[in-house]
Amino acid sequence: MPLTDAQRAEIEAHSQASAPTHRPTVPALEEKLFKPIPVLDHGFIRVIDYMGDDSAVVQAARVSYGRGTKKVSEDSGLIRYLMRHRHSTPFEMCEIKFHIKLPIFIARQWIRHRTANVNEYSARYSILDNEFYLPAPEHMAAQSASNRQGRGDTLDAETAQQVMELLRDDAARCYRTYEHLLDTDEGPGLARELARMNLTLNAYTQWYWKVDLHNLMHFLSLRIDPHAQYEIRAYAEAMLDILRAWVPVTAEAFQDYRVGAFTFSASMLAALRRMLAGEAVTQPDSGLSKREWEEFQAAIRA
Amino acid sequence: MPLTDAQRAEIEAHSQASAPTHRPTVPALEEKLFKPIPVLDHGFIRVIDYMGDDSAVVQAARVSYGRGTKKVSEDSGLIRYLMRHRHSTPFEMCEIKFHIKLPIFIARQWIRHRTANVNEYSARYSILDNEFYLPAPEHMAAQSASNRQGRGDTLDAETAQQVMELLRDDAARCYRTYEHLLDTDEGPGLARELARMNLTLNAYTQWYWKVDLHNLMHFLSLRIDPHAQYEIRAYAEAMLDILRAWVPVTAEAFQDYRVGAFTFSASMLAALRRMLAGEAVTQPDSGLSKREWEEFQAAIRA
Amino acid sequence: MPLTDAQRAEIEAHSQASAPTHRPTVPALEEKLFKPIPVLDHGFIRVIDYMGDDSAVVQAARVSYGRGTKKVSEDSGLIRYLMRHRHSTPFEMCEIKFHIKLPIFIARQWIRHRTANVNEYSARYSILDNEFYLPAPEHMAAQSASNRQGRGDTLDAETAQQVMELLRDDAARCYRTYEHLLDTDEGPGLARELARMNLTLNAYTQWYWKVDLHNLMHFLSLRIDPHAQYEIRAYAEAMLDILRAWVPVTAEAFQDYRVGAFTFSASMLAALRRMLAGEAVTQPDSGLSKREWEEFQAAIRA
Amino acid sequence: MPLTDAQRAEIEAHSQASAPTHRPTVPALEEKLFKPIPVLDHGFIRVIDYMGDDSAVVQAARVSYGRGTKKVSEDSGLIRYLMRHRHSTPFEMCEIKFHIKLPIFIARQWIRHRTANVNEYSARYSILDNEFYLPAPEHMAAQSASNRQGRGDTLDAETAQQVMELLRDDAARCYRTYEHLLDTDEGPGLARELARMNLTLNAYTQWYWKVDLHNLMHFLSLRIDPHAQYEIRAYAEAMLDILRAWVPVTAEAFQDYRVGAFTFSASMLAALRRMLAGEAVTQPDSGLSKREWEEFQAAIRA
Repeated sequence: MPLTDAQRAEIEAHSQASAPTHRPTVPALEEKLFKPIPVLDHGFIRVIDYMGDDSAVVQAARVSYGRGTKKVSEDSGLIRYLMRHRHSTPFEMCEIKFHIKLPIFIARQWIRHRTANVNEYSARYSILDNEFYLPAPEHMAAQSASNRQGRGDTLDAETAQQVMELLRDDAARCYRTYEHLLDTDEGPGLARELARMNLTLNAYTQWYWKVDLHNLMHFLSLRIDPHAQYEIRAYAEAMLDILRAWVPVTAEAFQDYRVGAFTFSASMLAALRRMLAGEAVTQPDSGLSKREWEEFQAAIRA
Repeated sequence: MPLTDAQRAEIEAHSQASAPTHRPTVPALEEKLFKPIPVLDHGFIRVIDYMGDDSAVVQAARVSYGRGTKKVSEDSGLIRYLMRHRHSTPFEMCEIKFHIKLPIFIARQWIRHRTANVNEYSARYSILDNEFYLPAPEHMAAQSASNRQGRGDTLDAETAQQVMELLRDDAARCYRTYEHLLDTDEGPGLARELARMNLTLNAYTQWYWKVDLHNLMHFLSLRIDPHAQYEIRAYAEAMLDILRAWVPVTAEAFQDYRVGAFTFSASMLAALRRMLAGEAVTQPDSGLSKREWEEFQAAIRA
Repeated sequence: MPLTDAQRAEIEAHSQASAPTHRPTVPALEEKLFKPIPVLDHGFIRVIDYMGDDSAVVQAARVSYGRGTKKVSEDSGLIRYLMRHRHSTPFEMCEIKFHIKLPIFIARQWIRHRTANVNEYSARYSILDNEFYLPAPEHMAAQSASNRQGRGDTLDAETAQQVMELLRDDAARCYRTYEHLLDTDEGPGLARELARMNLTLNAYTQWYWKVDLHNLMHFLSLRIDPHAQYEIRAYAEAMLDILRAWVPVTAEAFQDYRVGAFTFSASMLAALRRMLAGEAVTQPDSGLSKREWEEFQAAIRA
Repeated sequence: MPLTDAQRAEIEAHSQASAPTHRPTVPALEEKLFKPIPVLDHGFIRVIDYMGDDSAVVQAARVSYGRGTKKVSEDSGLIRYLMRHRHSTPFEMCEIKFHIKLPIFIARQWIRHRTANVNEYSARYSILDNEFYLPAPEHMAAQSASNRQGRGDTLDAETAQQVMELLRDDAARCYRTYEHLLDTDEGPGLARELARMNLTLNAYTQWYWKVDLHNLMHFLSLRIDPHAQYEIRAYAEAMLDILRAWVPVTAEAFQDYRVGAFTFSASMLAALRRMLAGEAVTQPDSGLSKREWEEFQAAIRA
């Protein structure tokens, strides 16, 4: 994440401004404002702005005239109740804005979450940096045999090294061509909107991404899942830390009722009840498929 | 807009808290925070929170590392460019949250704007106040003869008075029945979710309404239009004042390119070109319908 | 649900038209097309149009060139997999359009689901019918003592009768005033957009409501819940029947993984594991609140 | 657009099925169903399904019991009225579903339109084809000097040829590496979700894209604009032909009130009124910027 000196100076200048406000303020998040948190080899995520806090959720749920706060324990109880019963609208009343640098193939996954606002750096208008994602050896994995859309074993060190070199060579060569295509002196001076097509999908892009608290948690619940691709999970984990600093009560309820929760299907509930009644239930007589049985076992053993 | 003493105290307490923040802050809007602006006879609108300012629009458009600001004149030029070319995403990067008290029949119009977040006071959970909207005499109007969904002439003073009494009597009677239905001592103690059906559509409700700057302007462009119903326009006009305090540069561009603008259809453009070439064009030979011709004339004369 | 003769004739004429199409067609739903299914005392719901079927879900998930169908058992397995893992986008590829007549206070609950398309009958433009909802005696219930937003015991027959008369009298009187206000001969000829405010919230309105299959199931999962208000649940149940006719495989997976499912929080899972290990767990030592413990017990006993 | 024999057979089989339906049917669109329309060198767009027709717009606007149709001329008048006054909800009542093959860098532009449903071919799950976009010589253009995000002059034949070879070589090399990375015999058998990052942005992807008529027209109004990038405009133009076959009355109103229309800002209207009053107005005394003046002139001359 090598920022230029100019960028560091911009961030620094931005950080030093301070003004009084009557709005809800979260000191723990104020401290993190603007500072880039490194993710992957060249990426980052930083909080640019936020609106609301735990009390704002309470205030909206009560449509109150003041901060909505009664006692801390009552507020916490209400937030837990709202989370448990999937009352999503009070959580929509908080908002957060990020600046994120991420590889294009991850940006393509990310953008499928439509309930957010996005401003992406335009490669029609500007020139992308010479930065591309190369997985660290411990994240170089073979195709999973059991899961058509996942990773299996990590590659051995030598193979991982070879793969990294192949990825680096292609990305670097494509970038050199890109630069040449854009060159108005030595090259053809091709339009930026065309030249960009020669970049590889691990090139880095960046965007401003703004989302409300409800949709942020929805994003996180999908993307911190062990089945999510590692590269997007890395961003989700950084965001989960931010969530804890911003809205600690909500974050704890989120952990209990969403991240650490498990939904049992009607068939799983039937099997579970038989087990609790002392019956020995096996996969074949459970009515569950093999894969569901495994998920079921994982949930009740853990 | 008679707030109770408890409500005034809540607002007062909320207003006095102040804390330093690194976030963009707008002093002109800070002054308005939390204070109810009266609308109609018992309604109000007040700003609860906001995110961003004019510079945040610029910052997002440039995906910048700092405030995005170069020179004031450049920022203003960029905002005008974005508005003119309907680049909506940078305006989505600012957000505002209102607390609004409004008659139910207006709430039903308002809620058709789906791109906002809403938390409404629940009449399943709580009891609505004994307040209902009664139009002032100058807003009591007959059905328009020419416009199936609009108002025509104002009623004479005596008729207006009679109408007001009819509205007041029915609303008051319905509210008394509502109270009786809920009464667990003297009445049947009916469930709140049922009793509420006896209220009239001019009863007041209230909600928290949060929206981004782009969608706020879209709402305003539809609702400050002279064809919008007066009662919703009254809220829109109060919001337009808030817009000017919050994002003055954007508000001015909005005025020039949206509120004060007019879209000429292909047929209107053809007629216009003939006129500019010195030709005398009449409605019958313009290819425009009578109604379009009137709109066209209004736009070019004004 | 008394339709006029003219309305019946319109529906009849619409039903008789038939044309060949290459699009996916569902004979079981074609039979139901256009025919109003009565709900509550004067309401109805009828299917106006639909797009796609179970195979269209499969086809979209596979981004296939043909119908996407391999073997019926494979398709069913894929649909169950998508439902279990909350892959919502393939279900968004089917769409259904309803015409619904419903009381205004229910319409206000319904409209909170923003991810649908709505065209409501306009009371600015037209005059509403003289029809209002009166609950049947078996649905007249007292406020619940334990649940602030629910119903408790059913009222006794005599009290229910009294309540019904109160509701009927107020609604009827308000409607008579409404008619008088609109009257251009004997009355003031008030603008429709104003006169409507005198109606009670149990007056019936109607709308076209179009939604994709994913969002329809989300609506149903919230509104067929026993905690939903009876009056909206009545519509949801009629829609569940339609769902079964339209996309039977999806409807079955929906029943198993959503309607009949239960989500255990992290704390509930911890308690469950202790129980499966043979431990006797009680509410106080479970870490669950009383209310959560009851929900937990209900799920594992059933 | 070289489909495999298997794909052609799938499409053929799909096309031959036919069934009677009571739903609105558009013979002119039925003829086009499923058939790929070539766009760019390897892309295509084909209609998979549709819901509604011009009459369905009318029917929804009237919330009618039958087809909503009165006389053809009245329907047309209503559709034109709705379009002129930007009443968007009746147009949301029609829906269309496409299968589209397009270069990834165009897919990234396209996906910014969030109000649509998308299922994309998954490169985590499957292997992408060896196909990439190479612009035809007549679309190879230099960066525009005046417009930071547009194309200027077309490259001369020889330079265009050189650019094409550079693009082809890099894309082909990257694809060979991709294949090698995936190879479980000769190569490392890298996970698909990682290997895909080595592809260039001109590789083709494909998706199902479903959108309502209102949002389709919004997409088209932005993407058939001369300022849109040629490669996405090529798809938009193919879709405009489809629009004309599907909803001819709506398409004509769209042409008149949107595509062929021009919005005059408040300042432009002021200048226009002076001109119509016989005054000679010049850019410096018009209050318009140079760029606005040019746009203004283009609109009134044409």
